[in-house]
Order: sequence, then C-alpha cells, then structure tokens
Amino acid sequence: MTFKRYAGAGAGALALSLVLALPALAQTAAPAAGAETPAAAADFASAKDTAFIFNSLLFLMGGFLVMWMAAGFAMLEAGLVRTKNVSMQCLKNVALYAIAGIMYLLVGYNLMYTNVDGGFFGSFGVYGWPAAGTANEGDYAVASDWFFQMVFVATAASIVSGTLAERIKLWPFLLFTVILTGFMYPITGSWKWGKGWLDVMGFSDFAGSTLVHSVGGWAALAGALVLGARRGKYGPDGAVHPLPGSSMPLATLGTFILWLGWFGFNGASQLAMGTNADVSDIARIFANTNLAACGGVVAAILLTQAIYKKVDITMALNGALAGLVSITAEPLTPAPVAAIIIGAIGGIIVVLAVPMLDKLKIDDVVGAIPVHLLAGIWGTLAVPLTNDETSFGTQIIGILAYGVFTFGISLVVWFVLKATMGIRVSAEEEALGLDKAEIGVEAYPEFSGSGMRS
Amino acid sequence: MTFKRYAGAGAGALALSLVLALPALAQTAAPAAGAETPAAAADFASAKDTAFIFNSLLFLMGGFLVMWMAAGFAMLEAGLVRTKNVSMQCLKNVALYAIAGIMYLLVGYNLMYTNVDGGFFGSFGVYGWPAAGTANEGDYAVASDWFFQMVFVATAASIVSGTLAERIKLWPFLLFTVILTGFMYPITGSWKWGKGWLDVMGFSDFAGSTLVHSVGGWAALAGALVLGARRGKYGPDGAVHPLPGSSMPLATLGTFILWLGWFGFNGASQLAMGTNADVSDIARIFANTNLAACGGVVAAILLTQAIYKKVDITMALNGALAGLVSITAEPLTPAPVAAIIIGAIGGIIVVLAVPMLDKLKIDDVVGAIPVHLLAGIWGTLAVPLTNDETSFGTQIIGILAYGVFTFGISLVVWFVLKATMGIRVSAEEEALGLDKAEIGVEAYPEFSGSGMRS
Amino acid sequence: MTFKRYAGAGAGALALSLVLALPALAQTAAPAAGAETPAAAADFASAKDTAFIFNSLLFLMGGFLVMWMAAGFAMLEAGLVRTKNVSMQCLKNVALYAIAGIMYLLVGYNLMYTNVDGGFFGSFGVYGWPAAGTANEGDYAVASDWFFQMVFVATAASIVSGTLAERIKLWPFLLFTVILTGFMYPITGSWKWGKGWLDVMGFSDFAGSTLVHSVGGWAALAGALVLGARRGKYGPDGAVHPLPGSSMPLATLGTFILWLGWFGFNGASQLAMGTNADVSDIARIFANTNLAACGGVVAAILLTQAIYKKVDITMALNGALAGLVSITAEPLTPAPVAAIIIGAIGGIIVVLAVPMLDKLKIDDVVGAIPVHLLAGIWGTLAVPLTNDETSFGTQIIGILAYGVFTFGISLVVWFVLKATMGIRVSAEEEALGLDKAEIGVEAYPEFSGSGMRS
Repeated sequence: MTFKRYAGAGAGALALSLVLALPALAQTAAPAAGAETPAAAADFASAKDTAFIFNSLLFLMGGFLVMWMAAGFAMLEAGLVRTKNVSMQCLKNVALYAIAGIMYLLVGYNLMYTNVDGGFFGSFGVYGWPAAGTANEGDYAVASDWFFQMVFVATAASIVSGTLAERIKLWPFLLFTVILTGFMYPITGSWKWGKGWLDVMGFSDFAGSTLVHSVGGWAALAGALVLGARRGKYGPDGAVHPLPGSSMPLATLGTFILWLGWFGFNGASQLAMGTNADVSDIARIFANTNLAACGGVVAAILLTQAIYKKVDITMALNGALAGLVSITAEPLTPAPVAAIIIGAIGGIIVVLAVPMLDKLKIDDVVGAIPVHLLAGIWGTLAVPLTNDETSFGTQIIGILAYGVFTFGISLVVWFVLKATMGIRVSAEEEALGLDKAEIGVEAYPEFSGSGMRS
Repeated sequence: MTFKRYAGAGAGALALSLVLALPALAQTAAPAAGAETPAAAADFASAKDTAFIFNSLLFLMGGFLVMWMAAGFAMLEAGLVRTKNVSMQCLKNVALYAIAGIMYLLVGYNLMYTNVDGGFFGSFGVYGWPAAGTANEGDYAVASDWFFQMVFVATAASIVSGTLAERIKLWPFLLFTVILTGFMYPITGSWKWGKGWLDVMGFSDFAGSTLVHSVGGWAALAGALVLGARRGKYGPDGAVHPLPGSSMPLATLGTFILWLGWFGFNGASQLAMGTNADVSDIARIFANTNLAACGGVVAAILLTQAIYKKVDITMALNGALAGLVSITAEPLTPAPVAAIIIGAIGGIIVVLAVPMLDKLKIDDVVGAIPVHLLAGIWGTLAVPLTNDETSFGTQIIGILAYGVFTFGISLVVWFVLKATMGIRVSAEEEALGLDKAEIGVEAYPEFSGSGMRS
Repeated sequence: MTFKRYAGAGAGALALSLVLALPALAQTAAPAAGAETPAAAADFASAKDTAFIFNSLLFLMGGFLVMWMAAGFAMLEAGLVRTKNVSMQCLKNVALYAIAGIMYLLVGYNLMYTNVDGGFFGSFGVYGWPAAGTANEGDYAVASDWFFQMVFVATAASIVSGTLAERIKLWPFLLFTVILTGFMYPITGSWKWGKGWLDVMGFSDFAGSTLVHSVGGWAALAGALVLGARRGKYGPDGAVHPLPGSSMPLATLGTFILWLGWFGFNGASQLAMGTNADVSDIARIFANTNLAACGGVVAAILLTQAIYKKVDITMALNGALAGLVSITAEPLTPAPVAAIIIGAIGGIIVVLAVPMLDKLKIDDVVGAIPVHLLAGIWGTLAVPLTNDETSFGTQIIGILAYGVFTFGISLVVWFVLKATMGIRVSAEEEALGLDKAEIGVEAYPEFSGSGMRS
C-alpha cells in the first residue's frame, strides 16, 4: 500500500480500525440504543484487535532480535577459529541462516506446527499466509509467528557450525543444514511446541534449552565424533595443544550480540503481550535472562581464577552463553536470585566440561557442546525447581527423547555424507586453511601476506 | 518531563489519556446519558489515539533499525577496503551520517514532503515539530516520521562512499554528501513519496529500490566515472588485478547489520501499525524481506560455485544485499516463494555484473553499483509481477526519470568539484593510503608497524 | 506459561484482557443498564491497561537498547587500547556488566528508589517482583522498570574501564565496580531520580548527563589520578607520546553501537508511552538525540581540520559521543536546531579538552573524561537554556554535589584498594601487556606471533 507513504496516510489506518470495530458495535448498540452510538463505539479500540497488534509486534521484535543472533554466532565463531579459516566460518554462518529460512518455509513450519495432534510430526507442504491488506483470524498475524519461529531454526544450525569449524567441507555442512532445518529440528520441535506427544506428557521447555540448544548440541556432537579432531589438537601422548582463536574482540562482540538477541529469544517466547500480565511476564523474563547470564559470567571468572589462577576471556564469554542457555527452559518462574544461581551453575558446567571434552578428544572448536548441550540439559532439568506444573521424570524423558533422536539421526546423516561425498578436507587443505583451500578469499589478506602462515 | 522519572510517574500518563479521551466522551455521553458515563468512557482506549501510538512506535522502531544500517555500511566498507584506507572509510561513514541528519532537517524534509502537490519538489525551510508535551493532529507523531525519513537519506549517501573508496578526497566527498542529502535525494524523493508527478502517474516503490538504492547507485556511478579507477586495479592489457579487502569478518558483520536494519527499512515503510491488517502487512514484509535475502545468498553461492568452482564470501554477502534491494520496491504483495525468486534474481545479477563492471573498467570498490543500482532497477521492474495496481510502463518511466536526473546532476556536481577543489588524492597519497595521507590515523597502527606497507 | 507456545495460545491473552476489563465494567454497566453491556464493555481495550502495556514495552525496548551499549563500550575500548591489552579490555567490559546487573538487584535498586522521600538514599534489601502470571498495580510492569534502570548502572561502570585501561589490575577494578554499581551510583541516583533532596530542590537531569555520565567520569578521574599514567605516555620534558589504539574500525563500531543505544537511553527516559503526547515526546527525543550527535561530529571534524589541518577519526567518534552526552540532560525541550548546537558545543569541548588533559598528565586512554564528565557538565548546565522549569543555580548545585561526592568517595576507595591489594600491574606486566600478564589469552595470538611485541 504505497499510498501510505503520504503524510495523510494514517487516515487509512483509522478507517480500517473503524471497520474492524463494527462487530463490537452491534453488541454495544443494543443497550445504548442511540443513532450516534455506532460512531461512539467506533471511537474505542477493540480489546481483541489491540491484543492482536501487541502480540504480533512481540513476534516481530523478538524475531529481529533473534535474527541478530545469527550475526552473533558468526562473530563468535570468526573470533574463535584461526585466521586461516575465518572467511569460511563467516560464509558458513551466512549460508546456514539463508538455508534455514528457505527450508523452514518449504518444509519446516508445517512439519512442526500443522496437524501434529499429540503425535510425532505435522504435515508436509509449503507454508504461506493471507494476501496483503488482510488480517487472519486468531490472536496474532500468522506471518509474524512464522518469522519468529524461523529464526529459532537458524540458531540450532549455527551451533553446529562452531563445533565442526576448521576441518569440515563447505557443501556437506550445508547439506546437513538442509536436513537439520527442514526436517530434524521441525520434527522434534513438533513433539513439544507443535502440541505433540511430549507436550501431552507435560514436558516443559519455555524457549528451547532442549528444543533448540540441545538439539544443536547433539547434532554438533555427532558431527564431531564422525569428523574427528583437528590435526595437531591432540598429541599421541594425550597432550592437548590449544589452538587459540584469531580475535577475542570479535568473540566478545559475538557474545554481546547473542546476549542481546536472547531477550527476544526468551522474552517473545511468552507469545503474547496483549495484557498487563503478559507484558509483566515478558519483563520478568528479560530480567531473569539477564541475571542468569550475569551469574554465568561471574561464576566462570571466579572458578577459572580459582582453578587456573588466571581468568580466561573465552571462559567468561562461554559462561555468559551457558547462563543464557540454562535459563531458557524456564525464564519466567524463577525468582531473580534463583535465575542468578541457575545461570551460575551453567557457567560452572562450562568451565568444568571444556577440559573434560578435551580428555575425551572431542574437538569442539568454540565450546558449543558444553554451552548448548550440557547447559541446555541442566536448564531443562532445573525447570521443576521453580515450576510446579512440571516433573523431573517428564523432563528427563524429554531430554532423552531429544538426545536419542537427534544424536542418532545426526550420526546416520554424517556417516552417509562421509561415505558419499566426504565431509573432511585433506590434510594439506586443513594445514593451508579452508579460506585458501575451499573459498579462495582470505579473511585478512594483507595480514596473511606478512608472515602469517601458521 | 523529568518528574516522570519517579516510580509514581505513570499517573501522568493516565491523566493525559483521560484528557485525550474527552472528545470521544461527548459523543458517547449523549446516548448513554448518565452522570457516571464520562468516567466510564474515559476508561476505554480511544481507537484513534491507540493507532497514533502504534504508528509512531513503528516509525521509531523502524528508524533506529535503519539508523543501525549506517554502522552496517561502515563495517562492510571497512572490511572491503585495504588496511591503509580503513580509518578514512570509517570516518567518511560517520561524517556522512551526521551531515545527512543535519541537511535533512535544514532543507531536505520540507523539500521532499511539503507542498509538492503533484509537482517536482516541495518548499524550502527548516523542519520542526510542536513543543514538548504536546501531540500534533494526524495519525502519528510528526517527529517520528521525520526521524524515519531522515535515516533513509543517510542510506543513499552511504552507497556512494563505498564505490568511491580508496582514492577520493575527504572534503569533496563530504561536499557531495551535503548536496545529495540536502537537495538531490529530497527533490527526486518528492516525485513519489512526496506525492509528486511520478506518484500521480502511478509509479510504485514501496520502500526505495529506486528512490534510495538506485539513487545512491546512480550518484556512485557518476562519481566512479569522473574519479577513475584505483591505480593498479586495471592493467594496460585489460588485465584486472583484484585488490582484496582487509577484513572479511567486518564485511560479514556489516552485511548482517544491514540485513537486520532492512526489517525497519521495509517493515516500517508500511507507515502504519494501528490495525490488524497493517501489523499483518508488516509481518508479511518482514518475512518476505528475509526470504529475498536468503534467495540472494543461495543463488550467489550456487552460481559462484558453478562458474568459479569456488564460493566467494564477498559474493555471498553482496548476494544477500542484492536480494534485499530487489524486494524493497515491493516487499508486501509477493507470495513467500515469489520473494525468494525475486531475491535470487538479484543475487544472480550481482554475480554476473561485478566482472562486467571490471570489463568496463568501472572501479566499484565494494560492488555497490551491482547491488544497489542494478538490483534496485530489477526490484522496481518486478513490482507489477505481484502488484496489479502498477504497470511496467510507469515503472520504466520512473526508473529512467530517477536515472537521468540523479546521474546527470551527479556528473555535473562531480565535474565541478573536480574542476574547483579536485576530488582525487595524488598518486603518492593513494599508494601511501588515505589513513596516513589525509587523516593521520592508521586503522591498525601496530599491524602496519609490522611490515604492512602494501 | 509454555502452553502459550501453541498456535491457539492467544486465546489466553484475550481471556485475561476480558477479566482485567471487568472493573471498568461496573462503571459502564450503570448508565447503559443492559444485560449485554458487560460483554460489550469487555470488547473495548481499557485505557489504563493499554497505557500499562505501552509503558512497559517502552522500558523493555529502551532496556535492550541500553544493554547493547555495553557492547559499544567494549568495542570502543577494545579499539582504542593497544593490541596487547585488548582481551583484558573485553573481559573487563563483560565482567562489569555482569557485576552491575547482580549488584543492582541485591542492593542498588532499593537504595536508589525505595523510601528516599527527599533524603540522601533509599532502603537496603534485595529487589524483587510479583510472581509469574500476575501484573502489579501502577502504570508499568515493575520488572521492566528494574531492567531499564539496571542497564544505566552498567553504563556508568563502563566509563571507568576505558580511562583506566592498559595498567589497572583486573580484580581491584572489579571490586571498584561492585562498590560503584551497588552503592555509589544508587546513592547519588536517589538524590534526583529517587525523589531525593536534589529533586526537591528542582535539579533537572532528564536521562543522566550528570547522574550517569558525569558520575562515571568523576570515578574515572579519581582513578586516573591515583593510578597514574601509562609508562611511556608522558616524557620527562613534558612531551606527550601518542599510544595509538589497535583498531579504528572496532572503535567506530563501538561508537555506532552507543549512538544506537542512546535512543533507548534518552527516549525511554520519557518513562511513559501510553498517550499521544508521550509518544510524541519520545519522537522529539529520538530526533534531538540524533541531531546532537550529528552536531558533535561536524563540530569535531571542522575544528580538528582547522587546528591540525587533518581530521582525526577518534575525535570524530568522541565528538559524536560528546554530542550525545550533552543532550542527555535535556533531550526533550530543545528545538531541533538548538539540539544541534548543544551537541556541537559538546564536540568542541572534547577537541579542546583532550590535549588539555595531556598537559595535566592525566592519562585517559579513551577520552572518557572529556566525553562523559566535561560534556556531561555542559549538558547539565545547558538545561535551563531550553527548560524554564529549571535554574542555573540549582543545576550548578547538583553538578557540584555529584562531583564532590563521587570524586571524593572514589578517591578514598581507590586509595584503600591501592594500599591493600594494589591497583597497578608491574612495569614488566605493563610492558608485556595485560593479556599475557594477567589473563593469558592474547587478543590476536597469530598476529602477536608475527613480530608484534610493541
């Protein structure tokens, strides 16, 4: 409706609101019984319409904040891989976000939300919405809901790219992304958010500690096992050689972006903003989400100081992220101090789990498995501590169900990809770096030009 | 109203809402005729006032998202120029955004929106708004509209800075920015969005594929022709020497920032959020805008893989931007799959046009001409494919009108600047880099200190 | 309320709005006197509830924008310190934001806002909010207000970290942050925003030129005096040796992030969005905030060109920030052109004050004292120029009160920290860089590996 670009445009808006107020009119006209009443009734905002706008606005705001998390993962991973693989990591993050958006339209959304009815998946088919200028029935614009759910899928895919960085080939990774975002995530997502079998059982995951973060973590873990560690990471004698990331400020920027995006991730998962109670819940979620991240940071720096006598910036960053993942399963019911503690435990998990993974020679470049899988499990288990409507038994069943399915299917997919097209670059390409080997664009070409061949 | 900082402040808000509800009151009092009625009517939100707030909020949200695009252009360009010119590119982007804001207040807004009446430009004069504590008539706060329109001007100027990077002098560039943001953009903007002659003809450009992006692209093209290519870019034998950008992660960050900002750019161009239909349209716009960018990325990486057997990260980034520019002329009416296709064609245009420009020895440092001018033309031409209220004939007339005027005037301005103060740095300064030559602050001084004299 | 994740969820929202409309009902039922009236009344949105949602939404939006400023300070400082101290600067910024959030919950908020009653501080105690699913009385969700006020505290702490960079120890800095965010800032904050004695006197500071920025600046100045300058900064003969920052693009990014966040900082300080007048005020604030920053940039580049015959990118960036700080005390009442001038004077102050501080051998690594303290004082003094409800006398009293208290207490705290645990790293550690000396993670390890030992 380009005519709206005019200064006088708003008139259209008012006209429409009058029209939409007409149903209410019939009801109010009766008792008041006056010729002027129609006009009078139309002067008031409809409670249902106002809620529709607030709810849709919540999805749009939450959606753009979570979309921004794609940039956060890109910067975090670009900062935590070595210089020779930075361009590739950026490319993977841009490409996976693009693929996620398309796959979730073509397959994912309906598979996750349409006709699940207590079952194991929904229906197949491209998603769509009413034509321009119209509003659907219900309590929010359906396209705003699609947009919000779509950005969540991308988050799950972003988690995988970090763990498998620096040695996986571009195209097999993108193919896995197609399968994860079009099929795996939507199927398991339907179990809870699509009103599937786990929802019927009473499993609870407010914003996705399990549905999003653990799912990404399980897929990443399977990939790490099939792919193997980066050459030079683990010595024959069990020695672990650190391969420090190329840029701490980019990793820090990425973490702050994710932290910001998380207000949309958890806050808009309230799914409604049309009442005082709903907006108050969103406010509690914002505050608790922030407090959990704070707890994760403080716990991580205190613990690393205690253990290593130094504070590791990457642990502080992962502590924040682990705190955020931990509170995601239930950001609403915990009291503020409880939110700090839930996040702090997430931070502790990360500090302890990172060296543990190295002992197991599972090479997780950015620490995504401790942050998203382990803290995600913790957060899901912690729900019954503050939410009486849930039980540990059901939470454990849910965690296991998501783990078995996602880890199992991922293993199969990774093995098939390995057997067919191959998933790992050659030793030479890995040494040279993926930027030169696979995409031919170095991240910092002039820098590389001055003795940067490490 | 600093007193509002108090906890008890909201009372003021309610009081005002009661006052503002009084007009409605008169109308409702009549039929109901009861002493309590005034109070009763005041208990309800006025439909007009609620729409006013939602519409203004849309402009403010859209405005801060588009303002953020200034950072996106800065990072994209900082990443795509060589190290020795990065500080200057950052400076130009900060300065042009500042100039755009001031010029659009002093001249631009009224020239674009006041008393155009089907003509070729509006009136001259500084823009302003009612005093604090008051609300204007109409359907949104006039200052919110000014803020939203202002950030669009800056976008057009940002496009120019990228193309002309690495060899244009600072001050002539800033002078051109003064003319572009204060006069050229507002004049042509008035033709459509100010209800000028092209609007009367039925030309359609929802959010600015032509009014913003092509205009920036035409001005950049004229500048590139007058300024000439960077030394060393084109060999005598028609050889093209790539001059790789300094930082792919910064270019990637810039692209993600622009992608995020585009939700405000297109979404808030709906110009109203006060009805279910309007917020539903905004939701469709968000989704389509994202899908077009996704289409641009996927098309660009598939095509570069097919042509070059490698994926170029810069092509993936420009593919996303081209997809965004392509959908900007009509982000509302296309069905989701159509949005993907429109964006994908934009991505293909970029991949094919970049080498074509090099054949023509037009040196466009960041690829702004393919992305903003060519994809902008494509997007404007594509409108009638999904919007019946438009015609190809009128769209072509509009495209030509904007091209002839902006390219022509820009050529004149660039030539005048060249003849008077000169627009290009000396060969020595260009070799040394603009950071040392013109502003004396290197982007990465310690880095440059370690053998970085390329 | 995870059940809301269902498509059919919105129903819950409507149901609640009906319930909440019931009180209004009683009043309307009387005059209309019809059985259908209850249903009819419930069809309308309550003015009070709608304002409650808009006000809370304003706090949440403003809050996430100001939270984002933490990333802005991190990037600005990471770009303005030398490579060898970048990781530490990132760590400090993440840690101080985390500490601020926790301290403001445990102590700060109640100390600042509860039972101040014209006095000098509020009450002690952990802050909290009603349980999930409920809404508090009043005009906004209390948790949204807490979230918004909390991010302001972090801003004050961020200012300190920049000035003291490159030579202060991590833990004493974090301890000071605990005291600043838990006690000092809340106590002085209560004087004005908590309805304390300065508010009773009529002191005016809309969004915190003094309460936030000058407070941070005073604490930073005290720290700089106690800590001393970086080794090598000032020669014995009064010579000043520039120690250029490591990355201008990161500094530019940080500035743009802060600029964006400032719309929330100033705009949401309106504290209400439930009426046409309030949202119009917010719009004026957005526009004026942007114009002041523009004025700061233009003034800074023109003045540096005039004085030094070159434009310094860091001056342009600090000019923008000084413009923003200058308008923060009164972003609402100035006419647009006045906003430009107020910001421009801020930019001039920075350009003149930076060398002045060097003459005094006060080593302020990022220029935070000119930007936040001096421009903050200017902005606070400028309020009566456009706001008749204020007087220069009262503004001066306020400025002095904040200065004496914050500078005095900070001096004491810094001296105690120096006498007890020590606040400065050794000469060897300073030369080596804090990244290697204190946290063991280099910002750009491969880069440092290639001859970067400066």
